[in-house]
Amino acid sequence: MREQDLVLGIDIGGTGTALGFVERSGALTQYCAIPTRPADSAEAFVVALHRRIEALRAEIPFPHRLAGIGIGAPNAHPVRGTLEEPVNLDWGATVDLTALVRKYYDLPVELTNDAKAAAAGEMLFGGARGMKHFIVVTLGTGLGCGIVADGRVLTGASGFAGELGHMTVDPNGRECRCGKRGCLETYVSATGLVRTVLALLAKRCDPSPLRRCAADALTAHKVFELASAGDAISLCAFDRTARILGMKLADAVACLSPEAVFLSGGLAAAGDLIVAPAGRYMNDYLFRAYRGTVRLLPSALKPGEGAVLGAAALVWRRLAAEDAFGRKEGAA
Amino acid sequence: MREQDLVLGIDIGGTGTALGFVERSGALTQYCAIPTRPADSAEAFVVALHRRIEALRAEIPFPHRLAGIGIGAPNAHPVRGTLEEPVNLDWGATVDLTALVRKYYDLPVELTNDAKAAAAGEMLFGGARGMKHFIVVTLGTGLGCGIVADGRVLTGASGFAGELGHMTVDPNGRECRCGKRGCLETYVSATGLVRTVLALLAKRCDPSPLRRCAADALTAHKVFELASAGDAISLCAFDRTARILGMKLADAVACLSPEAVFLSGGLAAAGDLIVAPAGRYMNDYLFRAYRGTVRLLPSALKPGEGAVLGAAALVWRRLAAEDAFGRKEGAA
Repeated sequence: MREQDLVLGIDIGGTGTALGFVERSGALTQYCAIPTRPADSAEAFVVALHRRIEALRAEIPFPHRLAGIGIGAPNAHPVRGTLEEPVNLDWGATVDLTALVRKYYDLPVELTNDAKAAAAGEMLFGGARGMKHFIVVTLGTGLGCGIVADGRVLTGASGFAGELGHMTVDPNGRECRCGKRGCLETYVSATGLVRTVLALLAKRCDPSPLRRCAADALTAHKVFELASAGDAISLCAFDRTARILGMKLADAVACLSPEAVFLSGGLAAAGDLIVAPAGRYMNDYLFRAYRGTVRLLPSALKPGEGAVLGAAALVWRRLAAEDAFGRKEGAA
Repeated sequence: MREQDLVLGIDIGGTGTALGFVERSGALTQYCAIPTRPADSAEAFVVALHRRIEALRAEIPFPHRLAGIGIGAPNAHPVRGTLEEPVNLDWGATVDLTALVRKYYDLPVELTNDAKAAAAGEMLFGGARGMKHFIVVTLGTGLGCGIVADGRVLTGASGFAGELGHMTVDPNGRECRCGKRGCLETYVSATGLVRTVLALLAKRCDPSPLRRCAADALTAHKVFELASAGDAISLCAFDRTARILGMKLADAVACLSPEAVFLSGGLAAAGDLIVAPAGRYMNDYLFRAYRGTVRLLPSALKPGEGAVLGAAALVWRRLAAEDAFGRKEGAA
């Protein structure tokens, strides 16, 4: 039986890391998630990651060859291959993640911003197929964003275009881990939702199961469950989150005029509590030239898989380009 | 003596229209400005425009041939060649300006958004030569914006990318002519500056020559003169304008990560009262990945000329492309 070429896609988030093996067609062969443990070192993370990769490879039920590794990670610089001051990870100012991974795998490694990887995944395998102008917003621990303009993932002059999570909602607002105040991701993200719950518990008097929960024990998932069960504070927190997201997406649309905005990541899985209301708010705040022309949609890829597929797609594209010039053989 | 080919560039603004004849090198041969009179019809405007064009042509001191006409105008659709619901002109919902102009001139006519023309002018003949990522903001009656990403003027899916003037500063804020509330151009523009003066006259008690001026008689130029003479209310109005501009430019930078932002238009001529403070405020609100990497600069083109040069540049580029395939001869 002939060996099947696979690319490993890795999506590193502030709390969890997803990985999976991706065929040339975009089919995901194996997939799992591990905790990121941002307080540990990058080296310790890569040790744990390597162990998990090899365990996962052992489960692949057909002969295969690992052809490359694509990684999406916070604050990754697409040209330099490093993580630069990752806000939600305590891994130091500059982490040469490419070099750490290549200690274990002598293979092509592509590193890009996790949200840019999600945008590439949406474009190649998801709901943005055929679109030339779109935005992907990932709502996890923070708020990430990948922008495609004229069919290309936008990097900007710095390599860091698309940091919508650090647009300013309120210059006197919540402290952000980046050092600024009132950044969008302090309101619109899993942690932002929890902070909004805390603010509402201070402001309002209605009873809520949330009042029996310590701040540190509050999670977006808990707020989601309570909102689904009709808890007024939880519902209000989702509505506020959707309104702020809609308003700032309207600002981004005023810059970029995309065909669609896709929401992905953990918080986007809250579905009708966030996607539909954020779409209505966005439309309210849109300049009339755009109104009704921009759709807000859930990602067409399964939670987590988008960034994994996108990270792998970067490698598949590189391998295809190298094939055209006669790639030298080699496998791990 | 051999006839010199010239392209007519026209920049239509909410209050004034500038026009001039541009050589292939970018040299501006003749230049003048006429009032736009937005309350009159588009037809009446084109009649007056035609009269002025012919008067200006008669002054050109060398034999010439008119090779085409480029027009920058508010809410122009770059593909359809029409003005669509121009907010600051009472010319109706859709104006086929290209057809109106071609009644007088059987020549290539290119119509684009006035701010996109300014961006093209800055790229070809101004301070953005050699840059691949930049933003041009024009501060006139409204706030216009042209964006260049990866070396191309961004149109977006709708053709109307770059409507930064309609980003939301305050969802409960000032009424905008577009129907929304709190749009950036209600604060940052010549009219926005005057509205800020009125708000400060209501809020503060200090004496000011502005208190002897009717609201309708207040102009940005008057505020500029008084600020230059040390009037506290005028200085405060400029500072607030610069702060709001800086904050929203930081949001645009978070989307686009440009190398520079250029300010042009009437209000930008206020120089140190607006450009330098807006640059400082922008830097304060920037996400750290961008801080210190983005310059806020005055346009390198003379006020008004940037959009005229840019509008003409669109035609020069089209003629060059046609020349490559053997352009058919013909002159007005």
